[in-house]
Amino acid sequence: MKINGIHYRSVWLADDGHTIEIFDQTKLPFEVQIIQLQTMQDVATAIKEMWVRGAPLIGAVAAYGMALAMRQSSNDENLQHAYDTLIKTRPTAINLKWALDRLYQALENVEYSLREAIAYRIANEIADEDVELCRKIGEHGLNIIQKYAAHKPAGEPVNILTHCNAGWLATVDWGTALAPIYMAHDAGINVHVWVDETRPRNQGGLTSFELGSHGVPHTLIADNAGGHLMQHGKVDLCIVGTDRTTARGDVCNKIGTYLKALAAKANQVPFYVALPSPTLDFTVWDGVKEIPIEERAGEEQSHVYGINPEGTRSWVNTAPQGTTCGNYAFDVTPAEFISGLITERGVCEASAEGLQMLFPDLCKQQP
Amino acid sequence: MKINGIHYRSVWLADDGHTIEIFDQTKLPFEVQIIQLQTMQDVATAIKEMWVRGAPLIGAVAAYGMALAMRQSSNDENLQHAYDTLIKTRPTAINLKWALDRLYQALENVEYSLREAIAYRIANEIADEDVELCRKIGEHGLNIIQKYAAHKPAGEPVNILTHCNAGWLATVDWGTALAPIYMAHDAGINVHVWVDETRPRNQGGLTSFELGSHGVPHTLIADNAGGHLMQHGKVDLCIVGTDRTTARGDVCNKIGTYLKALAAKANQVPFYVALPSPTLDFTVWDGVKEIPIEERAGEEQSHVYGINPEGTRSWVNTAPQGTTCGNYAFDVTPAEFISGLITERGVCEASAEGLQMLFPDLCKQQP
Repeated sequence: MKINGIHYRSVWLADDGHTIEIFDQTKLPFEVQIIQLQTMQDVATAIKEMWVRGAPLIGAVAAYGMALAMRQSSNDENLQHAYDTLIKTRPTAINLKWALDRLYQALENVEYSLREAIAYRIANEIADEDVELCRKIGEHGLNIIQKYAAHKPAGEPVNILTHCNAGWLATVDWGTALAPIYMAHDAGINVHVWVDETRPRNQGGLTSFELGSHGVPHTLIADNAGGHLMQHGKVDLCIVGTDRTTARGDVCNKIGTYLKALAAKANQVPFYVALPSPTLDFTVWDGVKEIPIEERAGEEQSHVYGINPEGTRSWVNTAPQGTTCGNYAFDVTPAEFISGLITERGVCEASAEGLQMLFPDLCKQQP
Repeated sequence: MKINGIHYRSVWLADDGHTIEIFDQTKLPFEVQIIQLQTMQDVATAIKEMWVRGAPLIGAVAAYGMALAMRQSSNDENLQHAYDTLIKTRPTAINLKWALDRLYQALENVEYSLREAIAYRIANEIADEDVELCRKIGEHGLNIIQKYAAHKPAGEPVNILTHCNAGWLATVDWGTALAPIYMAHDAGINVHVWVDETRPRNQGGLTSFELGSHGVPHTLIADNAGGHLMQHGKVDLCIVGTDRTTARGDVCNKIGTYLKALAAKANQVPFYVALPSPTLDFTVWDGVKEIPIEERAGEEQSHVYGINPEGTRSWVNTAPQGTTCGNYAFDVTPAEFISGLITERGVCEASAEGLQMLFPDLCKQQP
């Protein structure tokens, strides 16, 4: 999508053909800074420090990390080392393992001299495929938004609530949850987005930045506000992303997603989850019981970034001195709270049956 | 309660016998600053700018505002002017109207020369009564916490989640939701409090400050985290406050309370609301339909206060330039989600029957 009229992806190859370029998303939405990644270790840092975030983008960047590793040294030891290093950078994102496995399997039985070229080719494929997945998710989600638009009085927008950032900055382009919204807006549908701030890391700022750059009307709200808005008919539907989707349709997404799903159910507001198939994990059934939830440093909760009165990016510590902060990064929304899963193959029920219908090939591959 | 070992109330008379002293709560939890209020207009500013907040404290401070007004000029015109000015400072807090009505009715038929003394006497009474109400709420709530403590394995704390600040800083002393927690802690019960950050104004910092000052173990968390914690059995019960409670037991409290009540219900976690009877409003039945929700400036959402890296109090703007922010201050939790109302007269069901049983006198007074 566009920033100041220029089209970008969220990860791309530099003109030299091997350096990887990304935005430092920890500086967004305040500063647009492009960072060059030259080594596998740079990539590991970029993922771990959340310069890149969002499951699909993490997968693509990790794939390029394998390519950089093969450029550094293409022997078996380094292949294993790169895999082992990159897999540990984030514990939750299923795309990370999916992309690394794909690279590893494609490279392990190939002679050393060919590995770099193959790794770059596959990493490029993963990026291109992700763009195509998101485009298709956008098209299927657009059909849903069109239905709500058809029942709106003239001049009234379709109000969509989203949580976290599942836009193009979290993927390679388009986004997942935001793809249908971009397409609806581009198709001339009057949409307005309620953007959850998404504490503790304020990814709602990224979503506001994206939507603002593209011209989509939106309002940034506290994570606390969604229930009230739904009680009062101010939300027509919710669309969120997911980092991991289980065989029965539970979704593991940014902390707080579950609370919005509860409010949606209680107020008869449809709650959709947009996902590309790489986030599917048929090895997990009960997301609440089986998915370990990442606990991150308390400073991410207490320290808030923004622009200070002098106009520069700074943090402030919002917690009283000596306060212990908890920081749970994700939660699981059980399938029963989800109205439908928007995938690249269409929309299905959030259930084992729904997923089996759309992904008979994938659900059999995995135990 | 205590700060650095010294006992304070949240509003008190200065040594001169007429100046009102409060903490500037917008500077807490970072800076403990006492402010002197010399005029009715000072009091109006203090309430409007949220130097004081919390329904019971607002009521007490407003009462002292009437006393200051009578000191300035005790004629009928100024009595009316003070009432009209103070009533407009915050639209939601029912205690505000309750306290102002009590003062107005006591003063309107009294000769001018007596008004100042009577106003101070009643304002002092309101403050003392509030302390007593909160102490009783604490005792009744303590019984509930004791029950959960009795079933805990040795060494495991009773985990209590709270939202916003319903502690002594929101009342005159003790607090409402926190009173039972202080009493449990003082009684030697092992309690641990999950403190919701409570965006957009981060009143969770006040709660952390209070609990820390008193030595009660606690963890500050994002508002998004409570659902996940409840899914995983990490919350034994919730206790929150309320700004306004309807005849059928709906409660209007800080935005986001409703989301926690939904999560509590879905996970069989008891959800209690602590309230002194002045927050009861028997003129309202359906809180969702009938209570207007205050919308405040978007800057409260985008601008976050804290301590900057230089160690001084500062704000940062967390929203991308040009972003519109929504700021809904309260939401309504319908009675069906509430396990019980903890009042100064005991604990009752959140229902018309429950409230009528405990408050037969009050529910008849109001139409």
